[in-house]
Amino acid sequence: MALKGHCRQLTGIDPDSCAVESALTRRIVDQAEVLPGELTRDADLIILATPVNMILLLLGALPDLCPQRAIVMDFGSTKRVICDAMRSLPERFDPLGGHPMCGKETSGLESADPSIFQGANFALIPLKRTTSNARQAAEALVRLIGSHALWMDADTHDTRVAATSHLPYLAANALAYCTPPSAAPLAASGFASTTRLAVTPATMMLDVLQTNRDAILDSLHRYREHLAELENLLLTGNYPDLQAVLAAGAENRTRIEISAKGEIS
Amino acid sequence: MALKGHCRQLTGIDPDSCAVESALTRRIVDQAEVLPGELTRDADLIILATPVNMILLLLGALPDLCPQRAIVMDFGSTKRVICDAMRSLPERFDPLGGHPMCGKETSGLESADPSIFQGANFALIPLKRTTSNARQAAEALVRLIGSHALWMDADTHDTRVAATSHLPYLAANALAYCTPPSAAPLAASGFASTTRLAVTPATMMLDVLQTNRDAILDSLHRYREHLAELENLLLTGNYPDLQAVLAAGAENRTRIEISAKGEIS
Repeated sequence: MALKGHCRQLTGIDPDSCAVESALTRRIVDQAEVLPGELTRDADLIILATPVNMILLLLGALPDLCPQRAIVMDFGSTKRVICDAMRSLPERFDPLGGHPMCGKETSGLESADPSIFQGANFALIPLKRTTSNARQAAEALVRLIGSHALWMDADTHDTRVAATSHLPYLAANALAYCTPPSAAPLAASGFASTTRLAVTPATMMLDVLQTNRDAILDSLHRYREHLAELENLLLTGNYPDLQAVLAAGAENRTRIEISAKGEIS
Repeated sequence: MALKGHCRQLTGIDPDSCAVESALTRRIVDQAEVLPGELTRDADLIILATPVNMILLLLGALPDLCPQRAIVMDFGSTKRVICDAMRSLPERFDPLGGHPMCGKETSGLESADPSIFQGANFALIPLKRTTSNARQAAEALVRLIGSHALWMDADTHDTRVAATSHLPYLAANALAYCTPPSAAPLAASGFASTTRLAVTPATMMLDVLQTNRDAILDSLHRYREHLAELENLLLTGNYPDLQAVLAAGAENRTRIEISAKGEIS
């Protein structure tokens, strides 16, 4: 939707026939099918925007589907495993990894909103083989949809999103899991906000957890240790230290929010 | 602000002289001071809307400040300790506990927004001594500001908000604490949402943690145990069970959100 009107021709491929129908009816794309068929044979830029394990499958299928030269990008939430797989693509492909730092907890075309890219950071991961042509095309695409390109390597990306995205998902989901249904009438906006990510489809997140396991385990372990420290300070009634640690948490949140915004402007 | 135009006379008392000045200039109240002075001597309904420990101090000061009969309500985030203290008020007072299930992570008159009460649940805690007059006045007040009264006892309230509000605060704050500042450029709306509560003033939350310690320790402990289970499932690569548990977390979140809304309508 954000690319509409900016491409020579926009083609959509989605296994859900209702999504294909709706994308055509709403003229979001120029052509669309549930299977690639001949549609990919003309593309000069291919974007793989599916759950991570499906991206890996599609990368394996790409040589058969596309006889032509093409830039290949993905929008997956983890980058190390995907960029590793991209290395094995035949030479006619010019691949790089991408990850828009925006999203929703709901999926499907009904949830689609091109405005979420506006002002968002967009991680771009070059491979050694990525040409300057592909880099420029990716930068142009990111700028076009209103985002800000951040070039980095796959390991740096994966370690950081483990902390800013994958751990928050687990924390939110665990919180939702632990809440007794009887407490529901006393759940207000604070509960809604803290647990919003919990409903991200578990199947999709499982791919992420599998392909970024070590970094997520690290982040999760440090989180649990810190919660244990909070529990201990509360249990022993050490309120001065508890207040200091909570104030430090608040400060860090403010610093990160300012810094995230600063990076965009 | 939500009561404006609905009372014979509206009086505000706030130790911050700027807040007093602003409340008067904006005609949010009819009269206001930084100290109670004579202002409370005319009130037939007194609302204590401060951090919990200040509510406890004010309950102790009330007999000297108010020679007249009056209904006394509070808006504190924990109810057991406050309702216990209300029991010691002289007989001329008609006390009950209250807790609007809405709020913001920022405080002060600049953050004030009367619309947050619209559609929110509002916990009301009667004491044995609470008259039907006070109950009706509280119900009327809650209805007037657009909220929905939920009568319950103090222990039920405190156990439930430990799960829906106090634990989410700790989870959000710990998450913010554990996030490396270098990851900030990759912090997006998911991070912002999950950690929003982190910046709630630590001084205010300390009162809450102190006066609802046992229930919060219980909730926090169960949360840490569940996170340990997630960590273990990920570490051992037990992905079918991990997916099932995450799907259960998502389902519980959906059930709670539906139920919270159902209670209002």
